[in-house]
Amino acid sequence: MRTWNEVAILGVGLIGGSIGLALRKRGLARSVVGIGRSDATLETALAAGAITRGTKILADGVQAAELVIVCTPVGAIVEHVQATALACPRGCLITDAGSTKQMIARSLEQAAGTDGRWGRDVRFVGSHPLAGNEKRGPQHASPDLFVNRTVIVTPGEHTSREDCEAIGEFWRALGARLVEMSPEEHDRAVAATSHVPHLVAAAIASSTPEEYVTLTAGGWLDTTRIAAGDPELWQQILLGNRTNVLEALARCEAMLDRFRRAVEQADDVMLRELLAQAKKLRDAVGS
Amino acid sequence: MRTWNEVAILGVGLIGGSIGLALRKRGLARSVVGIGRSDATLETALAAGAITRGTKILADGVQAAELVIVCTPVGAIVEHVQATALACPRGCLITDAGSTKQMIARSLEQAAGTDGRWGRDVRFVGSHPLAGNEKRGPQHASPDLFVNRTVIVTPGEHTSREDCEAIGEFWRALGARLVEMSPEEHDRAVAATSHVPHLVAAAIASSTPEEYVTLTAGGWLDTTRIAAGDPELWQQILLGNRTNVLEALARCEAMLDRFRRAVEQADDVMLRELLAQAKKLRDAVGS
Repeated sequence: MRTWNEVAILGVGLIGGSIGLALRKRGLARSVVGIGRSDATLETALAAGAITRGTKILADGVQAAELVIVCTPVGAIVEHVQATALACPRGCLITDAGSTKQMIARSLEQAAGTDGRWGRDVRFVGSHPLAGNEKRGPQHASPDLFVNRTVIVTPGEHTSREDCEAIGEFWRALGARLVEMSPEEHDRAVAATSHVPHLVAAAIASSTPEEYVTLTAGGWLDTTRIAAGDPELWQQILLGNRTNVLEALARCEAMLDRFRRAVEQADDVMLRELLAQAKKLRDAVGS
Repeated sequence: MRTWNEVAILGVGLIGGSIGLALRKRGLARSVVGIGRSDATLETALAAGAITRGTKILADGVQAAELVIVCTPVGAIVEHVQATALACPRGCLITDAGSTKQMIARSLEQAAGTDGRWGRDVRFVGSHPLAGNEKRGPQHASPDLFVNRTVIVTPGEHTSREDCEAIGEFWRALGARLVEMSPEEHDRAVAATSHVPHLVAAAIASSTPEEYVTLTAGGWLDTTRIAAGDPELWQQILLGNRTNVLEALARCEAMLDRFRRAVEQADDVMLRELLAQAKKLRDAVGS
């Protein structure tokens, strides 16, 4: 297993904090530098043992890093990868943990065209660990957050095989299962598996009449849980994957329309059939 | 706390089995008779300690009962309450655990008009424990299933205060919190808090392209969990509460439409606002 002398984590919230804890618990990095905006978050991460040093200055934090993981909200990732590239040592590997990949890949490829450093000695490979939840902050971090979870690695056109495999090995060392796909395919997939469920969960929560909220139980609680996610973060994710989200949402609305018509027409055979299809798919995935 | 000499439970699945276990664990009933269709289920319930005797013959099971809880699928409850009324001792209390209440109440009130026994010496009070989940069968039963869960008791026009309170006391003795409302109000409420979430969870599951199913994570798993519920049971619930379900679904679809338009128009301010409203409501409910 490859070990690192120094790893820098930009953004030490749930994901960044968990990466730090996992690296240290597994003895994979000698130093883990946390870069954050607030002293409180950095102190929490330091106290939890997720990082060995905290700083609010990006250039300071990445100056000796062999690997930088950008765990900031998707809307800030391009800017942070570019700032990292200007300040990190030659040969440093950079990855991220963003929930959308295509916009980031395109922006960075465009920057590569105008900045000679890109693709030659700055090496970026996009990642998306499917391990977030509705919680935020390093106080919810866990060293086992990635164990048996899927991480999607999304090499771009100019990513070398070697770099892609190094990033894959990094995530596997944290216990994750690896899937590799293009940024475009990634975004189509997560629109259906993550972004539309989020929109629909939010719509169910918001359309529940207030006077009935005390009567909610297990089904409502499960179905709406992700609606507690951070609005600013999710706004960026949903608009950052707009076209795919609208396509996947149209598929979901068309399916919901079939259910609605079966109820309208009191068609018990059709409704049972539709429910049985959904159950079959859901049962196949497991808990 | 009132104790019972003999309680009969019609249908010893997750709910019926849990009632039996709770009654016995808490020393609330000397005998618990389970009435079921299959030997296997009755044997499982007996082995688990949920019942003290099992029978497949309704009239045999209820003949000495002071309290009968009908825990069969909603489509069968009216028939089972009526059959119980014909076979149980005078003065026996009957309740159910069905997820819809209005149709059951109306059918039984109509029967009361044609059968002199109804309302005089047969005493039925509808109940709905908000404690089910996607699992089925007595093997998933738990004596604590009702602890801190809400049970809605739905007295009809002819229910006496005394009977309503006896049924309320029964559920409270199992650890539940009690809410009382009319069958009509109950059905309007659960359309929004349970039935529409079920439909939408099923639509999300079914509209997820098969090739992406392996990429599902926490959000999708939570949002679609109840889609694993029994199709036959849910078909009965949804069509048994058709008008209210269609009204609540229309509210949810209108809300989803607002989210969709915010994404279409790339309106980050509106989208953040809609997501923030959903989060506020969800946070208020808790986990």
